[in-house]
Parts: sequence; C-alpha cells; structure tokens
Amino acid sequence: MAKNDPIDLTKHTITREPLPKSKKIYVPGTLHKDIRVPMRQISLTNGEKVTLYDTSGPYTDLSIDIDVRKGLQEVRRNWVMGRGDVEEYQGRELKPIDNGYEDGDKAFATHNPELQRKPIRAKSGKNVTQLHYARQGIVTPEMEYVAIRENQKREALLEQNSSANGVSKEREVRLKGESFGAKTPQKITPEFVRDEIAAGRAIIPANINHTELEPMIIGRNFLVKINANIGNSAVTSSIEEEVEKLVWSTRWGGDTVMDLSTGKNIHATRDYILRNSPVPIGTVPIYQALEKVGGVAEDLTWEVFRDTLIEQAEQGVDYFTIHAGVLLRYVPLTAERVTGIVSRGGSIMAKWCIAHHKENFLYTHFEEICEIMKAYDVSFSLGDGLRPGSLADANDAAQFGELETLGELTKIAWEHDVQVMVEGPGHVPMHMIKENMDKQLKECHEAPFYTLGPLTTDIAPGYDHITSGIGAAMIGWYGCAMLCYVTPKEHLGLPNRDDVKTGIITYKLAAHAADVAKGHPGARYRDDQLSQARFEFRWEDQFNLGLDPDTAREFHDETLPKDSAKVAHFCSMCGPKFCSMKISQDVRDYAEEKKKVEQGMAEKSAEFKKQGAEIYVEVN
Amino acid sequence: MAKNDPIDLTKHTITREPLPKSKKIYVPGTLHKDIRVPMRQISLTNGEKVTLYDTSGPYTDLSIDIDVRKGLQEVRRNWVMGRGDVEEYQGRELKPIDNGYEDGDKAFATHNPELQRKPIRAKSGKNVTQLHYARQGIVTPEMEYVAIRENQKREALLEQNSSANGVSKEREVRLKGESFGAKTPQKITPEFVRDEIAAGRAIIPANINHTELEPMIIGRNFLVKINANIGNSAVTSSIEEEVEKLVWSTRWGGDTVMDLSTGKNIHATRDYILRNSPVPIGTVPIYQALEKVGGVAEDLTWEVFRDTLIEQAEQGVDYFTIHAGVLLRYVPLTAERVTGIVSRGGSIMAKWCIAHHKENFLYTHFEEICEIMKAYDVSFSLGDGLRPGSLADANDAAQFGELETLGELTKIAWEHDVQVMVEGPGHVPMHMIKENMDKQLKECHEAPFYTLGPLTTDIAPGYDHITSGIGAAMIGWYGCAMLCYVTPKEHLGLPNRDDVKTGIITYKLAAHAADVAKGHPGARYRDDQLSQARFEFRWEDQFNLGLDPDTAREFHDETLPKDSAKVAHFCSMCGPKFCSMKISQDVRDYAEEKKKVEQGMAEKSAEFKKQGAEIYVEVN
Repeated sequence: MAKNDPIDLTKHTITREPLPKSKKIYVPGTLHKDIRVPMRQISLTNGEKVTLYDTSGPYTDLSIDIDVRKGLQEVRRNWVMGRGDVEEYQGRELKPIDNGYEDGDKAFATHNPELQRKPIRAKSGKNVTQLHYARQGIVTPEMEYVAIRENQKREALLEQNSSANGVSKEREVRLKGESFGAKTPQKITPEFVRDEIAAGRAIIPANINHTELEPMIIGRNFLVKINANIGNSAVTSSIEEEVEKLVWSTRWGGDTVMDLSTGKNIHATRDYILRNSPVPIGTVPIYQALEKVGGVAEDLTWEVFRDTLIEQAEQGVDYFTIHAGVLLRYVPLTAERVTGIVSRGGSIMAKWCIAHHKENFLYTHFEEICEIMKAYDVSFSLGDGLRPGSLADANDAAQFGELETLGELTKIAWEHDVQVMVEGPGHVPMHMIKENMDKQLKECHEAPFYTLGPLTTDIAPGYDHITSGIGAAMIGWYGCAMLCYVTPKEHLGLPNRDDVKTGIITYKLAAHAADVAKGHPGARYRDDQLSQARFEFRWEDQFNLGLDPDTAREFHDETLPKDSAKVAHFCSMCGPKFCSMKISQDVRDYAEEKKKVEQGMAEKSAEFKKQGAEIYVEVN
Repeated sequence: MAKNDPIDLTKHTITREPLPKSKKIYVPGTLHKDIRVPMRQISLTNGEKVTLYDTSGPYTDLSIDIDVRKGLQEVRRNWVMGRGDVEEYQGRELKPIDNGYEDGDKAFATHNPELQRKPIRAKSGKNVTQLHYARQGIVTPEMEYVAIRENQKREALLEQNSSANGVSKEREVRLKGESFGAKTPQKITPEFVRDEIAAGRAIIPANINHTELEPMIIGRNFLVKINANIGNSAVTSSIEEEVEKLVWSTRWGGDTVMDLSTGKNIHATRDYILRNSPVPIGTVPIYQALEKVGGVAEDLTWEVFRDTLIEQAEQGVDYFTIHAGVLLRYVPLTAERVTGIVSRGGSIMAKWCIAHHKENFLYTHFEEICEIMKAYDVSFSLGDGLRPGSLADANDAAQFGELETLGELTKIAWEHDVQVMVEGPGHVPMHMIKENMDKQLKECHEAPFYTLGPLTTDIAPGYDHITSGIGAAMIGWYGCAMLCYVTPKEHLGLPNRDDVKTGIITYKLAAHAADVAKGHPGARYRDDQLSQARFEFRWEDQFNLGLDPDTAREFHDETLPKDSAKVAHFCSMCGPKFCSMKISQDVRDYAEEKKKVEQGMAEKSAEFKKQGAEIYVEVN
C-alpha cells in the first residue's frame, strides 16, 4: 500500500440493509426544532405498526449516502457550536507512536486526511459537560433528544393501557414490576433527563468532538443499555474489519461500543471508528499509553498518559475507562486470589504501583484528568481494575476496597461537573450479585453502574455469553444501567462476526428482561406484540418483532421451509393434525358462549323478577 | 424393510467416545455390596484428578459392549426382584394402534422382539414405590446409589475445605450460599435420601420395569437436575435418530429424558429408548392416547387412557406427565389470555372438558391412576396444562388455580405412596419467578418442582434457550429441583443434534449456577478447579473441566491453532507481549516480598526489644 493512500473501505461491504419490514422514522424535537430522533418502525402483516428504539444509526436509512472514508453527517455540530462555549484550536500534532511506530512513513500509511476535523474544546473558564449544563438548569438538545428516544413513541400505548379495559388493567396490576428504588416515569420529559443528569444518576456520553453522535443516556431510570467491545490485537484483525464490526454491533442493538484495540494503527483505526459511529465510543487510554512505552508497564508516566488522553479526547472518544481506584494498598489483597488481577488495565496499574512502590498515578493526578475530561465532555467510566476473575474471588476485600475508592473519585469528578459511571464485575455467583449493586449505589452515590456480566459460573467456557447473560439480566433488574456484553469466545479467543452478534443479542434480551422486571413503562409492549403474533400464527410478524429476525426465520425454515408454512395455522412442533394454539381458540369460543348463556340466564332471571316471578335462583 | 426385521442400528453411529481425558470409575456401595456407582474422572495435566457426576451411562465406558438392538445390562434387575414384592406376568398384548396403525403388518415392522422383557408389577396387596419403602424405613439399593452419586467423591474435598487454611475459610464464609430454606448436608447419606423421599421432598423416578436405569434423585436438597426432551413428530424424525438423541443428551448432562413422540411407531421407539436408557424416561401418555383416537381430543376416553398408562408402565416409563389439574372451571379463565393454553396436554384436556362440558377424566379417575402408578413405581409429574405461554399471562388465575389443584392431587398420590413432582412454567418475568417457587412449595407441600425455563422475555425467538436459561438459573436457586431444557429452536422448529446439545449445556450451566448460589457443598469446587487452570494457563485442563470441552477447544483454536499455544503463557485476547494474568504472578511475588520484609522488620523489632532498645516503633 502506498504511503498516505487511505484504505479503500468501499471495497469492503458495510451492512446497510434495514432489518426486515423495518423503516427508519424520525421524531422531531419541540424545544429544539432541528432535532430528528431516529426510530425503527416495523410494519406488521395485520396492518399495525410497532415503533422501537434504534441504535443502528444512518446505516439502515438507505436514503442517506455514506462514505466511510469521509465519515457520517455531523448532526451535533450546530448544537455544540451553538452553545458558544467552545473554540476550535490547532490540535495536538500526530506522532508516529500514536499508531505504534517509530517510523513516520509506516505510521501514517493508514492515516486518512479526509477524516480529520479541527478539534474543539471548552473556552478557557468554560465547562462544556452535559452535567454542567444540567446543573445550570439548561435542557440541551442532547437531553431533549434522549427524552424523545427513550419514549419510543409509546404515548399512544400508554393511553391504551390506561383505558377502561378490564383485562389490560388486571394485567398491569398483576405484572407490576419490582424496581428496587428505580423510578422511571410514564413519560420521559427533557426536564426529567436534565434532573437525572444533574443528580449524577445518569450520563449522556457525548464528547463535543464526536459530532456524528446520536445521543443516548445511561442511568437506572432509563432503558438498560448494552455495550459491545471491538478491537484489533497483536495477533489478528484489521481496520476494515473494525469499522464493519462497529456497524454490525449497532445494527443488532449495541448502545455504545468500546474500542479496545491494542496493536498497530490504533489512532488511525479510531479515526475511522469515531467518524463513522452514531453511538458513543469508549476506550481504555492506558492501553495505548502502554503501546507508546513499548508494552512495559513500569515505563508508563503521567506525561505519556496525559498526552494520550488529549489525543483521544480530540478525536472524540466519549468515555474513558480510567483505573484510578487500583491503589497500592489494595494490590497485595489480590495475592491469595484464585485468579489474581484479570483486568488488563488493573494489572497494568498494579504492575506500575509495585514496580515503583508508589501510589497509582491515575489517582494522584485525578483532578488533572478531570480538567481534561471537562474541556471535551468526556465521561468517566471508573474502571474496576480489581474485579474478580472467578467466583472464588467475588466480593472480596480488594474488589470492594476499590469500589469505595471509586465512590470517592465520583465525588471529585462531580465537583468538576464531569459525568461519571462506575464499572463493575466480573464473576459473581447469583446470590452475591445484589450486594454488588446495593454497595455500588451506596458507595458511588447512585452514579450509573456499568458491569461486565457478571458470570454466574466458571465451568462453561464457550458459553460465557450465557453464564454472564444470567448475571447481566439480574444486575440489570437490580439497577445496573449498562451491561458490557460477553461473547461465546470469552476466555478463549477473539470474537468473529457471529460471536459479536450472539453476544449482543444475548445482552439485548438480558437488558430487556431487566426492563420488564423493573416495570419500565412500555417495556413489555414488544413481548405482548410478539406473543400476540405467535398466538395468531403471524409467523412473519413473530420473526420481525424478535431481536434477530434472520435467525428466527432460518430456524423455522429448517423444519418447514415452504412459504405456505409461514401462514399455516400450525407449526413443526405438533404438526398439522393437532395444535394447542388452535384449541385455545375453541376455548375462547366456549368462554364466549358460556358468558352469553350466563348473560341470557341473568336477563331471563331479571325479566322474571320484573314480572314478580322467582324461577331462576341467582347463584352469586 | 421386511416385516419383523428390526432396524439395524449398528449402521448408525452411537456416540461412545469418552469426553477428553475422562475415564469412568465406579464407586461401590456399603450397605448394598453389588452397587457400582459410575462417575467421571478427569485427569489434569498437573497430575490431579477431578471426579464429577456422570449421566452418560455405559456408553462412555468402552469396556462395555453395547448392542442397541438388545439393550443395556439390567443393573437393577436383582434389586427389584430381591425385594420379593413383584411378580412377572403376561403383559398387555401389543396392538397395531400402539404404533399408530390399524394394520398389524405396518405396525409391527419396527417391532424388535429382542427388546421385549416379560413385565413385572407389584404382587397383589404390595406397593413397590421408593416412597413406600422409605416410609417403612427401608434404605433400598436405589437410595444408597443416589447418595453415593450425589456426593461425587467429594469427601476428600470437604476435609480440605475444613482444614486450617485461612484463605479457604475466608472464602467459604464470604461465598456462603443463600438456599431459601433448602438444607443440603455436607455429606449425603443413604438415610438422608430415605428421609427426603419419605417426606415427599424428593423422588427417585425408577419404574421396576426399567431395570437398565442408573438411579438418580430429584429434590431441592440435592443437585439441581435437568431434563432434555426428545421425540419424533408428524413432520420429521426417525427411530434411529431418537436413540442417538438419547445417548447424545445424556452425554452432555441430561439427567432425565422425556420422550415426547407423537407420530407413528411410538411404541417401538419407546422400546428402543427404554432398553437403551441409563436415565429415567418420562412421557406424556395423553399424546399417545390421542393418537389412538385419531387425534380427536373429544374422542378420548378414560379406557383408552388407562390402557395407554399400562402399556407404557409395562415398558418401563419412569414418570408420567398427567394433566389432572386442568379443571373445567379453570378453562374459561384462559379465554382472555394473550396466548391462551400453550401446553399440548393442557389444551387436549381443555378441549375434552369443554366438548363434553364435563370434569377432566384424569381428575375424576385420579385414584385409579395412582393404583396403576404404584404397581410399577411410576412417578407423577403433575402437568401444568395451564402454564403461561407469554409474559402477559404469567401468574394468572388459571395458572395458580391449577397449581392449587396439583397440591391437592399431590396429597392424594402420597396417600397411595406414589412419588410426585409438580410441573411449572413457562414464561415469567424475572420479578415474578420467586412467587412461583414459593407458592409451589406451599401449595404442593414441598414436593419437587420441575419447571420449563421459565422464559424471562418473549422477544428473542431463536435464543429462547437463553431467555429461559436466565429464569431456570433463578428458579433453580430459589428451590426448583429439575429444569426442563429449552433449545434455540423453541417456538420455531424441531431441534437438531446441535440444538439439543446447546440446550443441554445451557441448562447444565444454569443448574450449576443455581447449586453454587444455593451453597450446595462442593458445587463451586469445579469452578475453582477450572479458574485455577485458567490462571495457570493450563489450557487443556480449562477445556476439559468445562461443560463442553470440544467447543472450548475449537473456539481457542480458531484464533490460536498451534499446539504450542495451548501451553503458552498468553492467550489471543492480549497477545504475547502483555498479559494481565502474568502480571498477577508479579503481584504475588510482591506480596510475598512485602510479607517477608514486614516479618523481618517485626523480628528485628522484637530483637531490639529483647535488647531493651526501642528503635522500631510498632505500627498498629
């Protein structure tokens, strides 16, 4: 490849086809007229339409022209500039080491000038975080955007539920959720969003330099979110794969994406990812800092780290995982663990601390980090570097010690009006999960919790999306705001395209199960729609309302491939002769008939009464 | 195929290879000397051995010759005959309709004379159930067998845990389970098994005609069990596939198997399955009864059903799902449900009830059913014919009405000393699962609960092994004794070989997560072993200790196929240069060093003190 010749991404297919029977619709703002919140509308075979939250960005809107060499439209540009608190400036100069090379030729081979934007930052004395604006009482366009987005156009639905329908009412009372203190209102207003952010209970990760972003919110009074990790590695992967991975992840429901790249061309990859990402991008800056010092943890310095923070903040990274809670005194507490320190960031910092016998420089420089974060509105994801790597190590002194420190750091960040979420485990048996959530809420003052799983058993390598999906659903129910996905390849290898999809779908269903259990208004709407379709043998609708229409259809067709089977009133489980769902219709007819007879009898009885007769005795 | 020419199953591969590095060992009985309880012993690369519960039967013992045309060895024959309470008799004559034909030639084409055994039943006035013997204070060989089996040779482990190892002790205290009232002793004795059975809290499903059985126990004070369903259908499948499905299911951990066949050759298929099954076989006899009346539910009669019960009891079916709780008065309660009645058995009985406007004949003839069950020691699995088929219908009046009736029936069955477990849902949001368990324990007097999932959301067709695995793990934790698996094909089609395996592994991990959360003694042992192997880069051990060594190895090899990578001290996630697990070793060295320094200082201080000096001031 010639120098300065950007990688030709048009040669590589970016998935753009909308999901079956799905159309992108846009809901306009009221306070901010230029807001257009994208949603996905599914057309059902019975003529009804179902509107859903949509993370897939412009990729699934075929009317939008996308060239990944140039990046997406900058939907947020005017909002950010319009606030008047930012300034363009000559950003940090790109260095060969940013891409992992000493040699400039090699380092800039993957550099794409078309993806460069002049960086912006807060003007001197200004603070541009959503938290800062919220505390000033300001409803930003980002806040109104997420309010509309969270509602999923379910106003009509809510009216329907509150109607004088006895069955619906009985159902809503019977199924009333248990939210463990979360309080999601029937309708999310922009003011509610603002207040939640002001209280630190929710964040909108939205770097002012990530103008391509479709804002979203993370907090336990909102829909439970999921994160998907992508990243290259010293062993495999390429930039092209990374961009399609991003698109692929958001297609299936990834609410945020973490770029965990550790090999060459980190900077260039990040350009491609950020300029093409409709979702917030998170990183772990220490990974790149480590690359810059040749992979030797003890050679890390505050200066290298600080430079990396600015490099990534200018590019537009929306949240940084910072392992500032790995204190020197906690490190020896991990020595007798079954699996020591399993977090990469955690072990880097632990190594640094013990090599120098000094306190973690992320902790000692924490206020300086806050200064950088607030200039770009990068949110903290306070890393749990000492999370347990096995059931045996769950909820131990090292883990909980670090969590307490993360609580202290949360308060410090808030003093700077920097948005914060807090990371959590890991590997935790079911009966110890709630303690994690409760302790996090208490120690971290209700800042959003963002957990990896947790895995509920260690004995199923190859199935850790499931061992962790169980824990994820549970902690989501208890109040966790975002769930970091785990793929089937966890502990074994790098996830491929199918693994990423499997991980995402597993976490989407876990997050949704949590929303339902919490009693999030309208969450069960989709379940009911799908169940109704199932009961009425609307196969196409059943597929299309599901999280993965393609797989559902494929599975169905394996047994009954004919098109006619998709409208047939039977399925492969019982065959055409006998069908339990069909019999249920007979039951309805019977109940209807019974009701009529009883009504008839009651009327006859009333008539007789009127006539002074008492032939029919009323049975209560 | 010629008449009476049995299907040549030798042409079809029955999977026999033991799992990697696994060997079958046998633990002898003490009370009953002829007992040999099979277990699986894994040899680790560090020379240690791990012994696990083994459901795979003689198939994974290559020293045993198996011919599926003749059936397995009759390990229980002497125990059953030895009690002196049974008699051989001329069984019911095989009818063409038993195989779904009017015509004898077709009906008997698949009949295999070599698989026929002369049936046995209780002598007149005798009762041969395990419950009956337990109530007499008798410890049967079956009871001692399951006691040994449940212990998994963990005596050595328990001694290790109770040793004066500070780390182990801290860990056991920290990880102490929450059992919600379940009480599993450190060591399971044959007398404990007897007492649990006598109390109705556990069952050993073991038809006296299923002499090939390796007994197992179902109850909440024992390991959580899982069931796998197999079955042909009007649309696909064949007898050969069914037998291999059985072997395949038990290979991966199916504790019991339900044969849900509904097409032709039901009887012949069942011969093959029972004579070749080391695990209990359950059926839903109403399915076959329905076949006999041409698939028309309203044509069912008590006589046809009774004849079917005897047919299957003579063959050796270990438990029957009987939908005796679907009462006429409950049926209209389902009319306004989103998904009506979704249980096949439930809808058959509902249809019968409303067609005749009569009470369910399974309810009105319940005591006669008990008389049949006790003559063969067939256990009840009281069917939940009105279980919810969607979240919207969870925990409603129909479901809970039926559950109360199942509680009444449990008591009646117990009066006959017939063993009982009770079936449960279905589709239930997370926050409503515990209510199911609590209500079942109360209404059904602690008889074991056996649930299908439950699914915690309806929006993921194609992933319902996971939506339900979440609910299964939770209800197992809360006290459910057996979890009926769900495959990825649920609601969509018939599971193939891979689907069956995926369903089983998912449910094994759910059951294990439940055991760990309950604090079952020794359950976490396997997690710790695997985590230890992971931490020490013993890749082979990590694969082999997992539920599915083949998949784990395959996933690993996709990224790092070289054999050398399996002993390498790094993995594909971080690459060779940086590895968090490696750093943890440095931490251990550091902590060790720190300890030494502190010790050294303490010694020096003590020395100085002895000399009257006070140079070192003691901290703390």
